[in-house]
Amino acid sequence: METLIVTEADLRACLPIDLAALEQVENAFSWIEQKRVSMPPVMHIEIDAQSDVDTKGAYVSGLDSFAVKIASGFFRNPERGLPSCSSTIVLLDSETGFCRCVFLDNGYLMDVRTGLAGAVAAKYLALADVETVGVIGTGAQARYQVESLALVRPFKRLLVHGRNPQKAADYRADMASRLGVEVAVADTCEHLVRDSQAVITTTPATERIVLSEWCHPGLHITAMGSDFGGKQELDPQILTKADILACDTRDQCRIGGEIQHLGAQADDMDIVELGALTSGVRSIARADADLTVCDLTGTGVQDTAIAVEAYRRVRAAGLGTVVS
Amino acid sequence: METLIVTEADLRACLPIDLAALEQVENAFSWIEQKRVSMPPVMHIEIDAQSDVDTKGAYVSGLDSFAVKIASGFFRNPERGLPSCSSTIVLLDSETGFCRCVFLDNGYLMDVRTGLAGAVAAKYLALADVETVGVIGTGAQARYQVESLALVRPFKRLLVHGRNPQKAADYRADMASRLGVEVAVADTCEHLVRDSQAVITTTPATERIVLSEWCHPGLHITAMGSDFGGKQELDPQILTKADILACDTRDQCRIGGEIQHLGAQADDMDIVELGALTSGVRSIARADADLTVCDLTGTGVQDTAIAVEAYRRVRAAGLGTVVS
Repeated sequence: METLIVTEADLRACLPIDLAALEQVENAFSWIEQKRVSMPPVMHIEIDAQSDVDTKGAYVSGLDSFAVKIASGFFRNPERGLPSCSSTIVLLDSETGFCRCVFLDNGYLMDVRTGLAGAVAAKYLALADVETVGVIGTGAQARYQVESLALVRPFKRLLVHGRNPQKAADYRADMASRLGVEVAVADTCEHLVRDSQAVITTTPATERIVLSEWCHPGLHITAMGSDFGGKQELDPQILTKADILACDTRDQCRIGGEIQHLGAQADDMDIVELGALTSGVRSIARADADLTVCDLTGTGVQDTAIAVEAYRRVRAAGLGTVVS
Repeated sequence: METLIVTEADLRACLPIDLAALEQVENAFSWIEQKRVSMPPVMHIEIDAQSDVDTKGAYVSGLDSFAVKIASGFFRNPERGLPSCSSTIVLLDSETGFCRCVFLDNGYLMDVRTGLAGAVAAKYLALADVETVGVIGTGAQARYQVESLALVRPFKRLLVHGRNPQKAADYRADMASRLGVEVAVADTCEHLVRDSQAVITTTPATERIVLSEWCHPGLHITAMGSDFGGKQELDPQILTKADILACDTRDQCRIGGEIQHLGAQADDMDIVELGALTSGVRSIARADADLTVCDLTGTGVQDTAIAVEAYRRVRAAGLGTVVS
């Protein structure tokens, strides 16, 4: 039995954020809607208050392989100059269960698929013309989300807000050169939200950082920071007053997303899963003045989608190391 | 970041079934009792009626690394001449969450730790003098269990029973040469149980294959085949009439072990976790005429124990391939 070992460098060489990868992540949402996905709840290993390991995975009927991803978040790592998040993805053969490939991706594939999922949300829910994008947070996802969004909404201006002024300044310099658009630091979350047509929240916050009264007609918000019980970025009133409230999966968002803070109220609400939109099962006519919100927690099927795409590209490029 | 990639051949070269490995698996039970273990429920990906993937993992405080194991069971593989079970184990650094090592072990470490767990059960629960061991089933675990048991009970005679006569004959030849003891094929389960002091059941049965009336004074049974809802090897009356009923973890056995078939009756029973015995928190004086039973489902902490031991040995032997 041969297994391909693929490093982060291999992946960066063949899988940038691009439209083909976006399409694959978009397909992943449709697979859920088409009931082709066997996806158990996340396996959560609690290490301590600042460290955990989340394992996600999903089998998709009709695909020749599927992934299980082991993702660590060790939030004291930055004190030693190391990134908080890392991951290892194991790609299994759908016919035999054998390990085809191990991605030692240090979180790269997770960052890519998470960013692309945000772009899928904006593709279906944001105004067709987005001039200004606002991003709250200055970490890796603040970068991947915005770079992905640029694939579907060619915006002109980017606002960023973060608690640490130096990181916000670094982010501005970094993204201005990468995207070739104007990037400015917003002094408050309120100014950022009021001045943007599309807002992405990417923080580990545990209390609302975006208030309902800032949310103007036409705004789209993708909230991707909250993925676990106790996390929160949005005032729950934003969810209840939204004209369209979407999510990746209702089951996960009720446990770990913004929707957790609605409690039983969520039972009676029309919460659209992205897969209903991407598959065409539902079509939503967004009015110009609508407020739209998407709650993302990240699902195992997205890991399968990006891992299958990565394997295809790595093989085509002759990258990776075969171990047998 | 460097990751060590270790193959089945590397592992077979440095980690046979031996007393040091047994000690490590025995320690794993004590860690549970000492409340040093963070171990979530198994993540089960259902593929179809004959295929699934189970992911287990456990962090243990005080150890410098911990494991997440992805184990496939694809029971149509033998039709193509392939083994049903395979696995990949990822060893994570306890301080950073980074991937230290990937074991492409094809199920070898799982087989070893599962066999050794059976030996731990027999060490604490079987008669001191076991002359005849009986094993039901003729697959990999029928071998690993018996080889492990030989570390703690130097028996003279081995009986085997399986539904397929050819496989039973192959097993007899194989194990006779490997263990240097007399091996005989028992024509029925009943004869096997009546003639043995220690019985191990290793089948994927979903209905009782060992009946209560065959269980004589002094008998010890380790039932390790049932690890999922709907599986069963023992008549539930064996559990209720046992003088000592033990298990790996009550929580898992109530879901997937023999104990699942006791239903609410299990609430009122004294079911001993092996960790209470291995840690010395409880000591059990086994009377010669006692019937003892141990229900094993396999736990993530055993995977961590064997992976940590394997990593230590692989490093000491200079085996494996470094990828960075």
